[in-house]
Amino acid sequence: MDLTELERLLRAYKLGELEIGETTRQIKNLNYEDIGYARVDHSRAVRQGFPEVVFGAGKSRSQLVGIVERLVERSPNVLVTRTDEGTFGEVRNLATDAEWHAAARLIRIHRDKTERGIGTIAVVTAGTSDIPIAEEAALTAEAMGNQVRRIWDVGVAGIHRVLAERDLLQGARVIIVAAGMEGALPSVVGGLVSVPVVAVPTSIGYGASFGGVAALLGMLNSCSSNVTVVNIDNGFGAGFVASLINRKWEPTAP
Amino acid sequence: MDLTELERLLRAYKLGELEIGETTRQIKNLNYEDIGYARVDHSRAVRQGFPEVVFGAGKSRSQLVGIVERLVERSPNVLVTRTDEGTFGEVRNLATDAEWHAAARLIRIHRDKTERGIGTIAVVTAGTSDIPIAEEAALTAEAMGNQVRRIWDVGVAGIHRVLAERDLLQGARVIIVAAGMEGALPSVVGGLVSVPVVAVPTSIGYGASFGGVAALLGMLNSCSSNVTVVNIDNGFGAGFVASLINRKWEPTAP
Amino acid sequence: MDLTELERLLRAYKLGELEIGETTRQIKNLNYEDIGYARVDHSRAVRQGFPEVVFGAGKSRSQLVGIVERLVERSPNVLVTRTDEGTFGEVRNLATDAEWHAAARLIRIHRDKTERGIGTIAVVTAGTSDIPIAEEAALTAEAMGNQVRRIWDVGVAGIHRVLAERDLLQGARVIIVAAGMEGALPSVVGGLVSVPVVAVPTSIGYGASFGGVAALLGMLNSCSSNVTVVNIDNGFGAGFVASLINRKWEPTAP
Amino acid sequence: MDLTELERLLRAYKLGELEIGETTRQIKNLNYEDIGYARVDHSRAVRQGFPEVVFGAGKSRSQLVGIVERLVERSPNVLVTRTDEGTFGEVRNLATDAEWHAAARLIRIHRDKTERGIGTIAVVTAGTSDIPIAEEAALTAEAMGNQVRRIWDVGVAGIHRVLAERDLLQGARVIIVAAGMEGALPSVVGGLVSVPVVAVPTSIGYGASFGGVAALLGMLNSCSSNVTVVNIDNGFGAGFVASLINRKWEPTAP
Amino acid sequence: MDLTELERLLRAYKLGELEIGETTRQIKNLNYEDIGYARVDHSRAVRQGFPEVVFGAGKSRSQLVGIVERLVERSPNVLVTRTDEGTFGEVRNLATDAEWHAAARLIRIHRDKTERGIGTIAVVTAGTSDIPIAEEAALTAEAMGNQVRRIWDVGVAGIHRVLAERDLLQGARVIIVAAGMEGALPSVVGGLVSVPVVAVPTSIGYGASFGGVAALLGMLNSCSSNVTVVNIDNGFGAGFVASLINRKWEPTAP
Amino acid sequence: MDLTELERLLRAYKLGELEIGETTRQIKNLNYEDIGYARVDHSRAVRQGFPEVVFGAGKSRSQLVGIVERLVERSPNVLVTRTDEGTFGEVRNLATDAEWHAAARLIRIHRDKTERGIGTIAVVTAGTSDIPIAEEAALTAEAMGNQVRRIWDVGVAGIHRVLAERDLLQGARVIIVAAGMEGALPSVVGGLVSVPVVAVPTSIGYGASFGGVAALLGMLNSCSSNVTVVNIDNGFGAGFVASLINRKWEPTAP
Amino acid sequence: MDLTELERLLRAYKLGELEIGETTRQIKNLNYEDIGYARVDHSRAVRQGFPEVVFGAGKSRSQLVGIVERLVERSPNVLVTRTDEGTFGEVRNLATDAEWHAAARLIRIHRDKTERGIGTIAVVTAGTSDIPIAEEAALTAEAMGNQVRRIWDVGVAGIHRVLAERDLLQGARVIIVAAGMEGALPSVVGGLVSVPVVAVPTSIGYGASFGGVAALLGMLNSCSSNVTVVNIDNGFGAGFVASLINRKWEPTAP
Amino acid sequence: MDLTELERLLRAYKLGELEIGETTRQIKNLNYEDIGYARVDHSRAVRQGFPEVVFGAGKSRSQLVGIVERLVERSPNVLVTRTDEGTFGEVRNLATDAEWHAAARLIRIHRDKTERGIGTIAVVTAGTSDIPIAEEAALTAEAMGNQVRRIWDVGVAGIHRVLAERDLLQGARVIIVAAGMEGALPSVVGGLVSVPVVAVPTSIGYGASFGGVAALLGMLNSCSSNVTVVNIDNGFGAGFVASLINRKWEPTAP
Repeated sequence: MDLTELERLLRAYKLGELEIGETTRQIKNLNYEDIGYARVDHSRAVRQGFPEVVFGAGKSRSQLVGIVERLVERSPNVLVTRTDEGTFGEVRNLATDAEWHAAARLIRIHRDKTERGIGTIAVVTAGTSDIPIAEEAALTAEAMGNQVRRIWDVGVAGIHRVLAERDLLQGARVIIVAAGMEGALPSVVGGLVSVPVVAVPTSIGYGASFGGVAALLGMLNSCSSNVTVVNIDNGFGAGFVASLINRKWEPTAP
Repeated sequence: MDLTELERLLRAYKLGELEIGETTRQIKNLNYEDIGYARVDHSRAVRQGFPEVVFGAGKSRSQLVGIVERLVERSPNVLVTRTDEGTFGEVRNLATDAEWHAAARLIRIHRDKTERGIGTIAVVTAGTSDIPIAEEAALTAEAMGNQVRRIWDVGVAGIHRVLAERDLLQGARVIIVAAGMEGALPSVVGGLVSVPVVAVPTSIGYGASFGGVAALLGMLNSCSSNVTVVNIDNGFGAGFVASLINRKWEPTAP
Repeated sequence: MDLTELERLLRAYKLGELEIGETTRQIKNLNYEDIGYARVDHSRAVRQGFPEVVFGAGKSRSQLVGIVERLVERSPNVLVTRTDEGTFGEVRNLATDAEWHAAARLIRIHRDKTERGIGTIAVVTAGTSDIPIAEEAALTAEAMGNQVRRIWDVGVAGIHRVLAERDLLQGARVIIVAAGMEGALPSVVGGLVSVPVVAVPTSIGYGASFGGVAALLGMLNSCSSNVTVVNIDNGFGAGFVASLINRKWEPTAP
Repeated sequence: MDLTELERLLRAYKLGELEIGETTRQIKNLNYEDIGYARVDHSRAVRQGFPEVVFGAGKSRSQLVGIVERLVERSPNVLVTRTDEGTFGEVRNLATDAEWHAAARLIRIHRDKTERGIGTIAVVTAGTSDIPIAEEAALTAEAMGNQVRRIWDVGVAGIHRVLAERDLLQGARVIIVAAGMEGALPSVVGGLVSVPVVAVPTSIGYGASFGGVAALLGMLNSCSSNVTVVNIDNGFGAGFVASLINRKWEPTAP
Repeated sequence: MDLTELERLLRAYKLGELEIGETTRQIKNLNYEDIGYARVDHSRAVRQGFPEVVFGAGKSRSQLVGIVERLVERSPNVLVTRTDEGTFGEVRNLATDAEWHAAARLIRIHRDKTERGIGTIAVVTAGTSDIPIAEEAALTAEAMGNQVRRIWDVGVAGIHRVLAERDLLQGARVIIVAAGMEGALPSVVGGLVSVPVVAVPTSIGYGASFGGVAALLGMLNSCSSNVTVVNIDNGFGAGFVASLINRKWEPTAP
Repeated sequence: MDLTELERLLRAYKLGELEIGETTRQIKNLNYEDIGYARVDHSRAVRQGFPEVVFGAGKSRSQLVGIVERLVERSPNVLVTRTDEGTFGEVRNLATDAEWHAAARLIRIHRDKTERGIGTIAVVTAGTSDIPIAEEAALTAEAMGNQVRRIWDVGVAGIHRVLAERDLLQGARVIIVAAGMEGALPSVVGGLVSVPVVAVPTSIGYGASFGGVAALLGMLNSCSSNVTVVNIDNGFGAGFVASLINRKWEPTAP
Repeated sequence: MDLTELERLLRAYKLGELEIGETTRQIKNLNYEDIGYARVDHSRAVRQGFPEVVFGAGKSRSQLVGIVERLVERSPNVLVTRTDEGTFGEVRNLATDAEWHAAARLIRIHRDKTERGIGTIAVVTAGTSDIPIAEEAALTAEAMGNQVRRIWDVGVAGIHRVLAERDLLQGARVIIVAAGMEGALPSVVGGLVSVPVVAVPTSIGYGASFGGVAALLGMLNSCSSNVTVVNIDNGFGAGFVASLINRKWEPTAP
Repeated sequence: MDLTELERLLRAYKLGELEIGETTRQIKNLNYEDIGYARVDHSRAVRQGFPEVVFGAGKSRSQLVGIVERLVERSPNVLVTRTDEGTFGEVRNLATDAEWHAAARLIRIHRDKTERGIGTIAVVTAGTSDIPIAEEAALTAEAMGNQVRRIWDVGVAGIHRVLAERDLLQGARVIIVAAGMEGALPSVVGGLVSVPVVAVPTSIGYGASFGGVAALLGMLNSCSSNVTVVNIDNGFGAGFVASLINRKWEPTAP
């Protein structure tokens, strides 16, 4: 809730400019916009330079296009995750500068490129198959104003590959590691650096990988204390939280 | 590996001050000290102001005391987690300023109180029973140079309790939330703030809580994008990674 | 078993109007009608104003149409759940006033609109994707004679959204909450009201949501004592039991 | 939040009786009392005739006694669940009319015996071993002003046992069924009645009962639509929600 | 191994009719026929009046037809389970009296109709959707020489339905019960009779039925001691073992 | 329900010897005796020569002794399973011929030794540690009038051990196989014989045996079609159902 | 890392032939080749006679063909696993001697047929359906220079089938056993031989086989001490490790 | 079965030295000795230089001592695993040279120290807490005639620790790796060497380590193809199979 606005309402009410019923209604509406099947909170995105994000899975193409149409009017940066190229075709009619990232299945409108991070974010994968999830993280982090360094295919079975990237890794403010199968890479990376590692288990594997559960458990049990974990295949979440870690920070204004 | 030291070794080798065999051996020893049943890496703790940490579970009392005896000589701050009061009695003989934190079952020697954070760390619990885990996180964060704000018993069944602490929460650089049962509090807190939330599932509950699994799954599936998760009951890990997020950061020296 | 009818049979038998074999057979038939591949109990629906309900999954279109044809003769209200638009096309030939609810994949014939509840039933969703399950619950409750209030997309990541609906929630006799992912909303709603909350976990989510298991466990472990739970995606069951709670109640006649 | 009180505060503020800072603080305090390691919400219990309830597991005896001492001053009815006889000994010093229920491991102070239900609540067990959980439910329901009928040991392997109790069951406003092992009894009872059935899986069984999971799954998959489920061994929750169903209801005052 | 034949071989060897190498080879071949990708044991089927059975899943149509072609020469009764109508089309060319059972997805050649049972086998389902699995059991039992009584849709939510069939059930030598969802019917049936009940969990259900796991666990934890369990959807196995129970038995000839 | 008795009641009612209320009550009481905390069905045991069985786990010693005292008056054979030697001490005061079977933790009173089987029952274990469970099965089978052959420690890692017992196995009417770890023995035994095999998974093992789950799954997936399964460690159930299979059978009297 | 090459670099650096920056870069490049989306380590394959292996799942056809094109230049033996016939069509354009193995879905280029084993490798299946996985193992082992003996369809339900192959089994240096369902065959084979058994659980089965989990657990709990396990359906891994066991071994050159 | 002995029996039978009954019996007895509650196969141990091994868990002290007494007469090397010091006290009375290994809870009689391996076996642990399991493996391997190299505490969080031991690792014929928590070390080690790696998950960890399941899954999903896995905490099995891999091998004599 916007406390400045709340105080304004209270004062207006006290001055008799608002009656008690209207005051109640306006306090309620401070927080979000109700668009029928969804209630959208624009305030954070606009004020803090966050992108607007639409989770595409489970929404129809026309719904997605409708939502993007509204968002693009209010926000310079918009992400649509877990979508498809057909939707992109229609989104491009609304925003000719929209980008289609096929591997990550993500549409990005990226107009505000203000830099908001204090360091770089390294995004690392154990294997080639983990790249789509890692790209989702990297594209999100870029849309949130970060410099991103991509380091692909440095899984632990060939340990020299990750060791060779030590300089890049040790130069980053925060590191995202996407890995499937046994999910061991975050522990190794975590041991090489002194910054937070955001681990993303991926659903890469077969048999006893159980759709990413083996990797998830491996990461939760990491022997490196600087590792935290997000949901399986949640590249967006990893990019989002890494961006928050890398942000130039000052207490939120009241 | 300490690259400055490595270059020194290479130069010494080139100058003939070291022969090839000795160069090899010293490169190997740059990294850790082998003390028989364990190999300890002191370099990070000493150089970066991290505390030395000993995981007490599964080690005998004499082993723990022996290890602490060595650590206390090299490092101003030492933590022993998952230990007991008897061990504390012996540790106090080595360090009369050692503190015993009964709820968290943690011994802390806390001599270097240099402030290393750029903001405060809020540590929040859903219920009274989550306090021991949250205390482990808070004590760790303090030992790593952070200001900590404790907010106990604000679980979501009485939502006004957490809303009443919005100011404290919104003023923090990073928030740790410990919760058992359904583990819903991190999502609510995550929605109130724009900083990273480190969620710690606790093994509080019964029946279908499955020793913290219900809370863990709840947190991994959080609808708030700024939530990351550590292992069940891993208060230390949460405190550690929150401290890394809150640190005044500059790239590690080469 | 219909005890009045049973006594009638016993008396007829005593008077010699029925011989012992026939008495036995009729006692057996008091309870249901055997239609070959199914045994249908009409008595409850007819006498108590319940709708007839057909679970569509796993039945062929012609089977479904055949069953509906029979039911529609005996009962003013009929629901077919988990069905498709093609089946609806054929059902409409039997009952031109049949309604097709696409989101909930449900056919409803709703002729008897007698009000049978003592209060309203609020149906709430955490997200937009939970609406189909919630609609199944709402449509069922309406068919059972209830006033329903729909409240969509008030998940806990934006806590003000649900708080803004407190009046509606606190005015209801019983509340249904459908939520996927971490399933935290029932706990928050449960804390706001003093009536029963029927929680429906939905299979919305990915990765460690395990098809609704994370939400199910969250709800079973709810810290709000007024929460009970039905099966994942069981919108019908939630609507049914909420209707029973809201019913004007008097002991069933003997 | 108490809306009447809130309006009073707003009016006092408008009249200048309260300044803006104090108004803010009082709004915050409307909701609960902070007692250090816990935040207690008394308002609901006092105004609505609910008992105060303390979950005993994980609290020390002195903590429990201290809490009870405070509660007993404000509320005529107090329950302490999952506790022991030693704690009861000390509680009896505070309240000589405290009752000790050994099977349910529950302390009850039961002074206000106002009847608040519109019908009876039947509490049913499948076996003898389920009685402790069922007693917790029954004692809770009584403390909330209900008439309770206990029906023990009518599991489905001897189906005549439950059929013989049909009259009792069909006369109840709501039924609680506690069952371990395969957890089949709620389905059978649900089929006999037209009121809600609150099913409590118990951890009774061995091998593939997995501590109550088999019973829990059985109940969640019940083919009777009037069955809802609470957590394994959660007798208190079942008694609580059944009491809410049975309550004479009118909309909560604004 | 056929011991009579073995003694014959040993005697022939002793008499010098067979040399040691040939004796070895023939002992090896006593047991089965190697047809390249499979080793088939004909002896039991032929000698004991068992049908030849081919598990169709995972075999190509031409493989299945090839196998049936060989079997039909040696055995009067052949079953092909988990197959399709196209395969049946080709099998009919080999055996014009082959039967296609669409619900059970089973081809049956049933020439030898010798009765081999001492009583009847009752096959029971909880719901309409369980019929395909139950039919597989019934068709198997018939092919093994049993009288089968089918009792469909008598699930426990309408307990009178199964009670009405008590006479049929109590007249059977062994009972097969197929049930999905909570899998409670075998316990009820088991309590009504004094003969073995073979329980078949089916994968009918959704959500927390987990593809038949809930039913499986329910049956394994049955409170009726005469219940045994086979794999989920294993109608064939249930029919097979029930047939062995019902067989006129005498010790196998040496 | 005893149908003969029921007809008697109906006739008495018709003749006016019983009025309608009394007829109702007596019909209800035909089935079991209510002894407060349990409802016992004696009819089956007495009429069919079954032993009375008490499951000892979760009952107090005085409860057990009280129950046995009553049972021993009505039934010549009584089993108390999952009990201890102290209870046996007291039971021996009631029945001096009571036997204590330490390995199986079972008390047996075995007075009626009528033979009721048509063949022998073989009870087989994979290892030495499975013997206690197998003994529970064997003792139960003996108490139900069967000849039992014990075959211990013939696990599949030394396949010759079980092959050496082929004669014994092939002479049995039904075979019980108790096995922990991978639970493979029932499949091998099942392939050697043409009679039903009742498989009992035991909780023997460690690590990924998960308390008998590995063995249970192995048995449910047996490639031998004559294998059925009971719950982990359920020796009693295996002995009970094997006895029913081996019984001289004739349809139950009406 | 190639230590000989490393010493060469160090000497060159000392002699001033390489400056320190270049030395660093070359040390880094000793280990693998970075081809954009993947980092390939050729050294082991080339120097040790291992085949190059590409895991086909999750790679596009053009990616696969591109990779094979490069590999085929450097290595005489190449395997592409989990691929399809279309890809084979294109690979044949690059290497006309490429083989397509339909059952195993594997492309093999097999030019270097040097024998590298000291004995034979037996590859065994429990059933016909396990052959594809077993073939993947066998083809891999052949490509690594081994003599392979295939033994199909000797599952434990017909124990004589595997006993008949004892000579073949006891003559092998290492045995691979592929089995689904209950996964019992490795234990039986393990008991017959004194060499390592590499067990491959397959996803063959239904219901409680849980996609190979039952077989996996059975193998992990094997009562034969010479059994080790690889992932479900991992025929390649089994063939690889069996080849390493069978290799003529001498310490790797420094 | 000992084929030489079998041929001898057949010839004796042919010559009339043995009659057919006796021949049968002796063929049966070729394989093992029946000692009441166990059937012991001595032949392999004695002939092949394997130690006799007794799994101590679940056997009484007197049983263990009795078994050891017999074994020590026939075999120079005996292991008792999972036992205690009290048992060792009694075993020392039988064999004064028995060794007690407290960490591994293992008694070893080690008289025959013949070397049977072709290289060394490296035994590696990730942490200090994994040492007991690793010691069980190492002691077993030594008792089977191998040179063992112990490498403790080289977990992946400090990757330089394991890299520093590359020479030792690359010199071994086979490597055993024991690791708990995320179980990542086998993958790293596997990538450094070209020999088989036998991975032993340990039950070290807490929370989502699930008693070793996380480590087990990590190892099964290893991205290094030379890794195979044994059961959680199965140090003995790892030592046994590693010894078979390292053995000087020649085909078993017929």
